[in-house]
Formats: sequence, C-alpha cells, structure tokens
Amino acid sequence: MARIIDGKKISQEIKDEVRAEIEREGIKACLAVIIVGDDPASQVYVKNKKTACEYCGIRSLSYELKADTSEEELKALIEKLNRDSEVDGILVQLPLPGHINEDNIIEAIDPDKDVDGFSRRSVGALSIGTDGFVSCTPAGVIELLKRSGVDIAGKECVVMGRSNIVGKPMAMLMLRENATVTVVHSKTRHIEDICSRADILIVAIGKPEMITHDYVKAGAVVIDVGIHRIDPEKNDGRKLCGDVDYADVEPVASYITPVPGGVGPMTIAMLMKNVLKAAGKR
Amino acid sequence: MARIIDGKKISQEIKDEVRAEIEREGIKACLAVIIVGDDPASQVYVKNKKTACEYCGIRSLSYELKADTSEEELKALIEKLNRDSEVDGILVQLPLPGHINEDNIIEAIDPDKDVDGFSRRSVGALSIGTDGFVSCTPAGVIELLKRSGVDIAGKECVVMGRSNIVGKPMAMLMLRENATVTVVHSKTRHIEDICSRADILIVAIGKPEMITHDYVKAGAVVIDVGIHRIDPEKNDGRKLCGDVDYADVEPVASYITPVPGGVGPMTIAMLMKNVLKAAGKR
Repeated sequence: MARIIDGKKISQEIKDEVRAEIEREGIKACLAVIIVGDDPASQVYVKNKKTACEYCGIRSLSYELKADTSEEELKALIEKLNRDSEVDGILVQLPLPGHINEDNIIEAIDPDKDVDGFSRRSVGALSIGTDGFVSCTPAGVIELLKRSGVDIAGKECVVMGRSNIVGKPMAMLMLRENATVTVVHSKTRHIEDICSRADILIVAIGKPEMITHDYVKAGAVVIDVGIHRIDPEKNDGRKLCGDVDYADVEPVASYITPVPGGVGPMTIAMLMKNVLKAAGKR
Repeated sequence: MARIIDGKKISQEIKDEVRAEIEREGIKACLAVIIVGDDPASQVYVKNKKTACEYCGIRSLSYELKADTSEEELKALIEKLNRDSEVDGILVQLPLPGHINEDNIIEAIDPDKDVDGFSRRSVGALSIGTDGFVSCTPAGVIELLKRSGVDIAGKECVVMGRSNIVGKPMAMLMLRENATVTVVHSKTRHIEDICSRADILIVAIGKPEMITHDYVKAGAVVIDVGIHRIDPEKNDGRKLCGDVDYADVEPVASYITPVPGGVGPMTIAMLMKNVLKAAGKR
C-alpha cells in the first residue's frame, strides 16, 4: 500500500505561502494572461489561473484575442506588456492557432517576465544552474517530493518522456537535486526493465494508464504527470485518469500521486510562486 | 580488441570540409578571440585556435588583455565586437581571473556570435531543439560517433559527469540522437553497475585513469573526454592520459578514443564549424 502524495493539499499550502508573503510584504504583483481563440480546455486553464491569482492577492490582466489574430498583433501586445512596469509576469496560453509560430511568441516575452519558464534563456539558466524561472509542472513535482519527505539525492530517477515542458526540465531539476537521472522515450528499448530500476519514476508520456506494475520496482515512488478525460460509464464513474494505471501500480509503490489531485494542481501553485518571484525582482 | 576512434583524422576531415566550403562559397568568416592574463595553458589553446582559423581560411582577431583588466573593460570590448559586422564569432578563453564574473561575460556576448555555445540562450536552444550554437566538445563527440559508424538511436548511453561545458550538453545531444540517456556524477550510488549498463559510455569526470574495465560492459563504445598531464618518467614515457585507464579498458571495448588524439582535437574542429555557421547567418 502506497502513501498518497496529496497534490491538492500541498498546492494549497504553497498558494497560502504566496498569499501570506504578498500580504506581509505589501507586494504588488501582476500577471498578464493572453489567450488566442476559444479552445474550451485553454479557457478553463486560464480561468483557473485567474482564480488562483485572485486568491493569492495577485492582480491579473486578461487578454482574450480572436483566433485569427496575427503573429504581429500578438507580438505587439507582448512588447507593450514587456514595457509596462506594472506587469510582472506574462503568460501566453498554449497551444496557439497553427498560423502563429509558438517559438517566436515565447521568445518575444521579456525573459524577466517569462513566468512559464519556456524561453530559451529560462531553459538555459535551469541547465547551467543560474537563477531563472523554472517550468511550473516539473518545479511542482520537486515540491511534491520534498514536502512528502522523499529523499532525492543519490536516488535512481527515471523520467519517462522528453517534452520541452516536462521531461527535459524535469531531468535537469532531478539532476540539480543530485539524483542519478535517466530519460526514456519512444525510441528506448527494454523500457520496462529500465523503468523498473527507478527509485523515483516520473511518468509524462501522454498515454492513458499505460504504466502498469511491470514498469515499477517494489517500493518505488511514482509520480504521474499525465491527465486524460475518460468515459465515466466505462470507468466506474471516473472522469479522469493519468499515464499510470493507479489501481495496478499503487499496491507496489511506496508513494504515488493520484489523478486528479496529484501533479495537476501544482502547476498553477508554482505559477503563483513564479509571479511572486518576478514581482520581487522589480 | 577495440577499434580506435581516430579523432586526429576525423577532426582533420572536418577542418578540410570547413576550408573547402569557405573557399568554394567565397565566405568571409572572422573569429575574435579574447584572452585575459597569461595562463600558459590558455595561451596554448588560443594559439591552436588561431592556427586552425588560418588553416580553414577564417580571419582571426586576437585580443590579449592584462590579468587586471576589469569586468567593465572586458564587457566594453565584447560590446564593440558585438556591434562589429565584420566579426562573426566571439570567443572568450576561460577560465577568467577571479575578479571577473564569467557568467556576466558569457551573457554579454551576442547570442548570434556565441560560437562556444555557453550562453543561456544557446544552452536553452539545445535543450528545446531549436537552432543554436552547440558547445564544441560534446558536438565533437557526436561527430566522432557518427563518422565511426556507431549507431546511437535506441542505445543506452551513460554520461559520466554533469558539467555545463560537457556533461549536460552531452546528455541533451545524445537524447536528441534518440539514445536512452543516464547522467551519473559524484553523488551517484553503485556507479560501476550503472556505467556497466552502457552501450555507449562517455567519460568526463576529470580524474586521471579512474575508469577501469569494472565500469565497462563488454562490447561498449568508450569515449574519453578527459585529458591530464602526467609524469613521463613514471608512465612509460606517456605525457598525457585521459579519465579512462586505456590499457585496462581497451581489451573489453568495441570502440575507444585514445588520449591524446581522440576527443581533444575535435573541440577546435567544431569551433571552426560554428564560426562557419555564424558567418553563414550574416
């Protein structure tokens, strides 16, 4: 029986810490959120970010642009926000419509306001070990581990997936925490064997419930970054699942994150932390 | 008996390719090299870089500054070279004297002229997978493997060491080549066992001849990034050695790089490639 890592509780603690610091220090913090088009999932994410800002005492500015907004118009808005000394953080909700180059847009954000940590300079700073904004989801995983009392240093960690938003920054963060880090991916051979070496297994592959106990060493810590909508009628009433087959893995793990209520809520909590950090730099 | 990966020959091929392209396309390329102080090893490196430039048909500018040069003076020179449209690449020989912050200096170089690939933006671009300058030594290791016919995709690669100049960019490059990558370091437990899993073992730990056959799986490819001066009288006339105990490892490896004549000559060859690339962007 694994101990359950309660991401809802830990993310709440972090938001409370941010809120308390903002109140105590009288910090004025402001996040500008840009959304292009009307993707329903993106709208939910943006709404949740605004709610969290409100909770923490962070002012949020919202820019809802039409789906046919040009790259130049979007860049012009970002440049205006870069120059605006009232704005501490700028977040462009991804994905963007296909006619806009996401890389160009991310690079247009002032690195000192890049609270998502997606720009080359932020990613490079994480790798080099200098100060910078760290991508929120992997940063949230580190907080989950630390606040659950999981030792990282010297442990074998396997990161499944090599995306720019999770896998690669996750590997760099675990390395910074002195884990021995392996990254596995779609081209990896004998992937079950390699995953079974892990003391800490971090799964970010985007495949519903793919990871069974065959991938997990007895006593391993299992962190599930995936989240997928599923049909409740076919899944005992469950609406969401992760990349990990929870029911199958939980009995062999020492710690495990549930879905929902594991890694998910941490992303926004870490975003709040990044906005506070950005405001502190002013 | 391992096949020997001949870095001298491969680096010569690369320099010849750079030279041929510069001649064929009539490219004007120029590298500015800055050295601060009179460290003898640094002077040798700078001299070798200038010689390679000359061979390839690249103009080189040399700035030899006194050891007491201030950070501001050095920055002012870099900013002048950033603005100089005749200069394609800027290289500041490291290490710098202790009173100068290396990070500040690296970040002062225009990222489009950062032919060493050490800036945050270059490192971030490598991680994200966008175009940028890649650090010369790890880029050279990839060339050694490819030009020796070693398949990388799907192989287990262990990178020993996590420096900013070799270990971390090396891991990112091997991941880009679809290897399954593990990074081990001073805090890694059971390091011999982990290294013995490697199909490709890349050693960059800075410890003379530490790696014996106990770290090497039979048939592994062994790449030795280390280089150390040793006393010839105590070492059968050898003046240099690597991080790998060559005599002990060579019999079990399938391919191996010697020291000298393995990875060493590749760094300058890849620098020439980076300068050519920088010139091509003008």
